[in-house]
Amino acid sequence: MATMASLFLKTPGPSQSLPKTHKTHFVLPQNLPLSWRSKYRAGPAAARIRCGLIEPDGGKLVELIVEEPQRDLKRRQALSLRQIKLSKIDIQWVHVLSEGWASPLKGFMRESEFLQTLHFNSLRLGDGSVVNMSVPIVLAIDDSNKNNIGDSSSVALVDDKDNPIAILNDVEIYKHNKEERTARTWGTTAPGLPYAEQAITHAGNWLIGGDLEVIEPIKYHDGLDRFRLSPAELRDEFTRRNADAVFAFQLRNPVHNGHALLMTDTRRRLLEMGYKNPVLLLHPLGGYTKADDVPLEWRMKQHEMVLEDGVLDPETTVVSIFPSPMHYAGPTEVQWHAKARINAGANFYIVGRDPAGMGHPLEKRDLYDADHGKKVLSMAPGLERLNILPFKVAAYDKTQNGMAFFDPSRPQDFLFISGTKMRALAKNKESPPDGFMCPGGWKVLVDYYDSLTPSENGRVPEPVPV
Amino acid sequence: MATMASLFLKTPGPSQSLPKTHKTHFVLPQNLPLSWRSKYRAGPAAARIRCGLIEPDGGKLVELIVEEPQRDLKRRQALSLRQIKLSKIDIQWVHVLSEGWASPLKGFMRESEFLQTLHFNSLRLGDGSVVNMSVPIVLAIDDSNKNNIGDSSSVALVDDKDNPIAILNDVEIYKHNKEERTARTWGTTAPGLPYAEQAITHAGNWLIGGDLEVIEPIKYHDGLDRFRLSPAELRDEFTRRNADAVFAFQLRNPVHNGHALLMTDTRRRLLEMGYKNPVLLLHPLGGYTKADDVPLEWRMKQHEMVLEDGVLDPETTVVSIFPSPMHYAGPTEVQWHAKARINAGANFYIVGRDPAGMGHPLEKRDLYDADHGKKVLSMAPGLERLNILPFKVAAYDKTQNGMAFFDPSRPQDFLFISGTKMRALAKNKESPPDGFMCPGGWKVLVDYYDSLTPSENGRVPEPVPV
Repeated sequence: MATMASLFLKTPGPSQSLPKTHKTHFVLPQNLPLSWRSKYRAGPAAARIRCGLIEPDGGKLVELIVEEPQRDLKRRQALSLRQIKLSKIDIQWVHVLSEGWASPLKGFMRESEFLQTLHFNSLRLGDGSVVNMSVPIVLAIDDSNKNNIGDSSSVALVDDKDNPIAILNDVEIYKHNKEERTARTWGTTAPGLPYAEQAITHAGNWLIGGDLEVIEPIKYHDGLDRFRLSPAELRDEFTRRNADAVFAFQLRNPVHNGHALLMTDTRRRLLEMGYKNPVLLLHPLGGYTKADDVPLEWRMKQHEMVLEDGVLDPETTVVSIFPSPMHYAGPTEVQWHAKARINAGANFYIVGRDPAGMGHPLEKRDLYDADHGKKVLSMAPGLERLNILPFKVAAYDKTQNGMAFFDPSRPQDFLFISGTKMRALAKNKESPPDGFMCPGGWKVLVDYYDSLTPSENGRVPEPVPV
Repeated sequence: MATMASLFLKTPGPSQSLPKTHKTHFVLPQNLPLSWRSKYRAGPAAARIRCGLIEPDGGKLVELIVEEPQRDLKRRQALSLRQIKLSKIDIQWVHVLSEGWASPLKGFMRESEFLQTLHFNSLRLGDGSVVNMSVPIVLAIDDSNKNNIGDSSSVALVDDKDNPIAILNDVEIYKHNKEERTARTWGTTAPGLPYAEQAITHAGNWLIGGDLEVIEPIKYHDGLDRFRLSPAELRDEFTRRNADAVFAFQLRNPVHNGHALLMTDTRRRLLEMGYKNPVLLLHPLGGYTKADDVPLEWRMKQHEMVLEDGVLDPETTVVSIFPSPMHYAGPTEVQWHAKARINAGANFYIVGRDPAGMGHPLEKRDLYDADHGKKVLSMAPGLERLNILPFKVAAYDKTQNGMAFFDPSRPQDFLFISGTKMRALAKNKESPPDGFMCPGGWKVLVDYYDSLTPSENGRVPEPVPV
């Protein structure tokens, strides 16, 4: 982990106070005094948050973390309740819910929310308004859990060491039809969907919904917690920077100069549209990813190298980790990725080719049509307020020795460097063409592959960048 | 077909004028002079239609049938165009579209409508309003069709004898991802879904959308066309009867006295709510049904016997055929069944247990949770204007010798006569308990089974009533 240390040295450490300058990518409000952080809570601060940034779904950012003075009480209460043991992915969803990424959802879905998500990718609220909600956020339990819970209205959610994480109140238990859930979420039931294999196929036959009280903020103690800003913290950071537009870029792969070009160009376009201070939320996904994706810690290192290289302007860029697990559910999931960023204050969302897509588990084709993600996103209920910015195609321009937007009038000048090509180069410690990725960022990729112990058959897992 | 004749003798025949009395179930506006029928067209009449009944989706009933004077011209134009041959089910969808059951849809879905249907079960209109649309209404073509169409913007749709049925204009051809369509519509991709086997699995790999011009009203020449009233004709009939509430009952099975009780009770409840003249639309589905359902002609005979028995009041009942094919897609399809009836003027919709459901094709269970249909229906986008009336459970009350609403305080008095039991009785020419179904209606069922030639293995197809 020596390489991680260098990352931390280059960003303000826990002992440093809030940077006075805006020249920072990595914002660390966790280091602020508690009194300052409490401003983020919905309530008195909510009106202030609303005046500048896009409103959270449902009008108010949901926050489900118990206030400090009540935590011991809630911990004791949890110990007196029937318990459900959470998986790692379950805890990631508790994290997501606790900070209001899924606002106005107040806990794991009850059946009416689950059905609306499966059938309509949206929830109708009490006032008749509609918010987007495309991915089921549910907690599976098995028969013995169900029997154990009996008629209890509240249950404790505990980690693998039986530490209480949260209390789920006013619970509702209903059937977990895995086939239907999978078919309606992914548009296929083919075996081999990573999230399904990880979190559905072997999960219990029941789902339990209810309202969450999360006993304390979720932490992973992996050295990256400082980068996990909540929607409230991000909103405050955007406000502090006087952002009049926030554009979000979701990613789960290494950043190359084509991405950087796109982000820079987006800011230019927003300025042209009349915005005075558009701020980029560069927002790598930090929850569960499939085995052949580049792990979060390596991606964060790579992102930092890219940023350090000066390709993106630190004054107008915020880098933070999005705590959601990854479904790889294409057009269904991209809505979730966009919706969650509304809650974090983004009013512009950059969408690329085949977002949240992957290869079909059984057939030799992409699971989703590459254009469906952006089409579905642009039509999705509850996302009308969000401005969708379709990704322009960038490629390596041989006449410029750098990444540029593809110009169809001179295709011969452009080189498309596929994910497969990029992987092969990094694995073989070769270099891509100058200007494809900054050398520091490329080295992180090479180091990552170098760190992998080949499995018995001599192959290493294959990440799928871009 | 001797038995069919008796049906027609009991209803006004083509030579009779429009009945002066309201005492009729079977309404026959096809027999009216053309000038009278033209009032149904959207335009001057639309305002009148709107004043009493629920507005059609999109505000105006879509009608796609070419006016008489232009028909020859359009027929000749069709002969000059590239052709697509329609299946029986395709023609049923042309029928559905042509009369505006799917208003505001003006033809087979283009990709943006198809995607919205799959993901959101609804369409957002130009003015931002949302209408329900849960079932894809699409036309599949194969590679050779696609090549043949080339860049043509209009194509002719022809029947199996190459007679032109319609012209499809401003066409858009896009991929037919059958797996995704099936998964998102049915919540399963298990082989054996009747509609999928009939109309998807062996269909072409492309879909073609566009605006329809239907050359003349679709007729089947099966002796039942007179019962196929369009939404405009139904609206006019409801207006003529001064209906201040229209409650629709979708069915695809024989009617027993439990159904009749429910319909009568619904009217009673509507009167209690203050409506002066609630009218029942008893609306058997007339399009494609699976092989083991009771065929339409037998169901119509059975319905007439039941009605003749006086269980339902002819003054407040309209019987007509709904031309849609059946998907058996449970909670997804019930929305279509309800939405189409809004377009026909219904503002109340009766929903039963497991609507449009069936057994799982591979597993020993129902494909859908029996309660999901009514739950999904009550939450569906675009159906907010429709009043959903959940079906009360009726059973045979042994103390009354008749069907009654189940009283949980005295379960021992009730007999549940399952579909399996009913089938077995009818096949064996046995009688159900007195009061389960009127004798005339029961005889039709017995006659139907009697008419079936047992297949080689000695078994006859099994209908699934109730």
